[in-house]
Formats: sequence, structure tokens, C-alpha cells
Amino acid sequence: MNPDEVSRAFVEHYYSTFDSNRAALANLYQEGSMLTFEGQKIQGSQNIVAKLTSLPFQQCKHAITTVDCQPSGPAGGMLVFVSGNLQLAGEQHALKFSQMFHLLPSPQGSFFVLNDIFRLNYA
Amino acid sequence: MNPDEVSRAFVEHYYSTFDSNRAALANLYQEGSMLTFEGQKIQGSQNIVAKLTSLPFQQCKHAITTVDCQPSGPAGGMLVFVSGNLQLAGEQHALKFSQMFHLLPSPQGSFFVLNDIFRLNYA
Repeated sequence: MNPDEVSRAFVEHYYSTFDSNRAALANLYQEGSMLTFEGQKIQGSQNIVAKLTSLPFQQCKHAITTVDCQPSGPAGGMLVFVSGNLQLAGEQHALKFSQMFHLLPSPQGSFFVLNDIFRLNYA
Repeated sequence: MNPDEVSRAFVEHYYSTFDSNRAALANLYQEGSMLTFEGQKIQGSQNIVAKLTSLPFQQCKHAITTVDCQPSGPAGGMLVFVSGNLQLAGEQHALKFSQMFHLLPSPQGSFFVLNDIFRLNYA
């Protein structure tokens, strides 16, 4: 798969997992992984998933608008930049968001998330 | 300066240069630098600045809403994630945008932009 295909496959996997079973996102992060969520800095797979599973909504659905990807340097990483809409159950209007991921190759031949920055784009 | 201060100083420098003298942004990129601008992929300092200086507006003003920053790995790089508003001269409404930069240390002791991804957040 080329980088664009890898990044699109990652994005589809990430958000379908988020929308169906947030706790399973733990597999995508490692101990050194970082999340900045609306300005709040969190480190480590366990802490990141604790944050994501404690968000004040139960059901949600991400709809992706754009996915951009670039190689991040000689370590074989990829930067993935996403924009989309987040629909919360019971809410009339979707929220627009932007999110970036820095993926690095894992020893298992897959990728893990080293960096994750999430922002809502308030209208 | 700590990473948050470095990233904020970079962001202020980048957008004030963009708004006053776009051609001078060439100094921030190198030959291997990548820009993805609204999905269009461009590589190299000269090509990137040619794109930025050919955008179909003369005067603009960026207003920054948020700046998030994380270290990108052992090479000493930094990821900088920006959201803000772009006001074009003569337009009534500002455009919302998101942009991410991957900064790497340069031999001169400063940073250069390896990765740059820009998206407008259409309402």
C-alpha cells in the first residue's frame, strides 16, 4: 500500500473503532504516545484511552471530510491530517473537528500513534 | 525557550511573514520540505513559495485561535498544530483554517519546516 492508502485505512480504522468501542483504541498507542485534546496534554496509552472513554457522550459518529498525508522523515513515519464532522447522539448539529496523527512503524510491522492532536473548530 | 514558547514564536513569525511578505517564507523551507495545500502536494522551498505567492489574493491577515505543540521524536522535531481565521482584503467574512507544521532543527541552530499541511474548514 502506498502512504495515501495506509493513511486512509488508518483513519477509517481509527474512527470506526472510536465510534464502536473506544477502549480498543489502546492498541494504537504506546507508552510514549502523546495526545493533546482541546489543549489538554495526556501521555501514555492507558491515560489516553482513559481520557477518550471518559468524554461526556456515549454514542458518536465521525464523518471524514478530508485526509492528507506526508512522510515525516527518515524514521518511516507518516503525518495524517484529518478534517471532519462529529455527530453526538441526541444533538441536532454535528461538530466540525480537525485532528492530526503522527504514525511510526511498530516492531510488529504495523504503525502506532506517537502524536495525536485534536481540536474542535468552533463556528 | 521551551517547546510551547518555540512553537508560538514560530507561528507568530510564520503568519506575520505570510501577511507582510510571502516570498520571505522561502527561508523557512528546504529542498525536501513538503506542503499539502487544500489537497495539492508541492515539494521544495522554491515550489512552495511559488504556490503561496500565487494564491489569488494580495492582502490577507491571519488571526490565530489555538496553537498546540508536541515533540515529534528523537530527531528533536516539533509538531505544531494551528487553528485560526484568515481574513482576505475586501471580503466580509473570515475563513476558518487548520494547519500543521513539522519543524526540524536546522544546522544553523534554528528550525525549518519539513511538513506543512493546510486546510480551510468550510462552514
